[in-house]
Amino acid sequence: MEKTRVAIVGMGTVGTGVAKLLLDHGDRTARHAGRVLWLEKAVVADLSKPRTIDLPEGILTDRVEDVIENPEIRVVAQLIGGLEPARTITLKLLEAGKDIVTANKALLAEHGPELFDKARSLGRSIAFEAAVAGGIPIIANISQCFSANQVQSLLGILNGTSNFILSQMDESGADYETALQKAQQLGYAEADPTMDVDGSDAAQKLAILAHLSFGSWINWREIPKVGINTFHSTDMHYAKQLGYRIKLVASATLINDQLELVVAPTLVKKGRPLAEVRGAYNAITVVGDAVGDIFFHGQRLQLSSQT
Amino acid sequence: MEKTRVAIVGMGTVGTGVAKLLLDHGDRTARHAGRVLWLEKAVVADLSKPRTIDLPEGILTDRVEDVIENPEIRVVAQLIGGLEPARTITLKLLEAGKDIVTANKALLAEHGPELFDKARSLGRSIAFEAAVAGGIPIIANISQCFSANQVQSLLGILNGTSNFILSQMDESGADYETALQKAQQLGYAEADPTMDVDGSDAAQKLAILAHLSFGSWINWREIPKVGINTFHSTDMHYAKQLGYRIKLVASATLINDQLELVVAPTLVKKGRPLAEVRGAYNAITVVGDAVGDIFFHGQRLQLSSQT
Repeated sequence: MEKTRVAIVGMGTVGTGVAKLLLDHGDRTARHAGRVLWLEKAVVADLSKPRTIDLPEGILTDRVEDVIENPEIRVVAQLIGGLEPARTITLKLLEAGKDIVTANKALLAEHGPELFDKARSLGRSIAFEAAVAGGIPIIANISQCFSANQVQSLLGILNGTSNFILSQMDESGADYETALQKAQQLGYAEADPTMDVDGSDAAQKLAILAHLSFGSWINWREIPKVGINTFHSTDMHYAKQLGYRIKLVASATLINDQLELVVAPTLVKKGRPLAEVRGAYNAITVVGDAVGDIFFHGQRLQLSSQT
Repeated sequence: MEKTRVAIVGMGTVGTGVAKLLLDHGDRTARHAGRVLWLEKAVVADLSKPRTIDLPEGILTDRVEDVIENPEIRVVAQLIGGLEPARTITLKLLEAGKDIVTANKALLAEHGPELFDKARSLGRSIAFEAAVAGGIPIIANISQCFSANQVQSLLGILNGTSNFILSQMDESGADYETALQKAQQLGYAEADPTMDVDGSDAAQKLAILAHLSFGSWINWREIPKVGINTFHSTDMHYAKQLGYRIKLVASATLINDQLELVVAPTLVKKGRPLAEVRGAYNAITVVGDAVGDIFFHGQRLQLSSQT
């Protein structure tokens, strides 16, 4: 069976999870992919840091050049968070002829046009299925399965942290601060939850989905957004009495050929699929002109620290 | 742009809908597919029957040989219902080097092993996305998007007619007969609804999904099934009081490496995604060991008479 040599750059929670999949479930992956994915290198910033994974001799390195300069490595999982050096490293990897897999949504929302243009001009690909909606394979669905459709709108609960907090407030009557603390205790929210609760994370994901669905690149900072951090449990209470739940909904809709985008807490009638999304789950409704509305609901990825 | 000549065999509701898509939305399809899909022939049993579509001169024929003997036609949408002559024609088309697209789930559930073996031995493909769950692209999701997962179980509401009837009984308190009549009036149920309401249709679809998820071909007749046709609105009433809805659930679960399959009316707790599936919708939960549970919800295809 053909062997494809791969590398991982960045061994945080996601990188370590990917390495485990490759090492422990290599047989299954090979069976499904029709080729062996062979972990050749794993690049870390600090070699002395303790790891939760035992890697075979020779794989761990702190030199990204070991990947860039090795022509046998064809595919790189680029799993460094943040914008730099993630951007520069991704460009160098593309120039060295590697195909890229990444889960870094901030990088794609910020530098998507530059990175995808570079990849296209070099005949390389950037795969990013896990960047937007955790376990939901929404990228493949929009870019492949909906290809006979014009997407008319998409509506999503794209930030699991916010949804967990709203679910807590709804179910237990907790106020925002208490619900946030619980999310932090359970590892659903980071010490600094700003990007999650102010709608930035959802806006970045929406920008990526809108690009796939409608073709244009949108600056995520220009998407009007209201977060859940100014939110009172009283609002939740009234909504409930009226038969609604409040969800942080990111939406993109074609209206008279104009694309309207917004991220905001939204009343959703109970019994509608989006209203029933609880806890740290993601969900997306895509409306296509041929298939009507398709609703996807799934967990954030277990192996990741993403929301 | 490259031109791929296609033919449609069988111009019922589905075939006519496909022809309209090809003729009216050819530009969009070409843009997405990267090639022009050119409708070359449409085969019908009776040329004199009135049609709801105006086809360009020379396309309509009652001779399937016009397709089989035309080497320029590469792809055939085989949309005849039932088992014969659908099976024989599909085999002949494969032998003539055509790739097949079909929505005939009964044919695949019954003769899948024979047809797929034939296709494989000839290097041809059989695509059948619309055969199982209407607008939900479940075939692509299981066969491609879940390829890094071992599917552990799948649970589906696969028959829109049954679900419409159960929703009617639940929402309006109607009895089974009244709900069935309403379904027939609205065109959700056929004059003879047996295959829908006795669980056969769901069992056929489950057999196809189980093949994709677990690899083995299952004779759909051997799947234990209970339909909704022996069902009382009293049962529904008690379920409701206890906080449940009753759904016709088709499930396939790996238990100690054994596959257990069943189609039966099932209590589903309110608020769980499957419980909230109303009307003539389909829904499927797939549990994979890497991504956890992913839930899909969508309409039966608008252009089809399928359920």
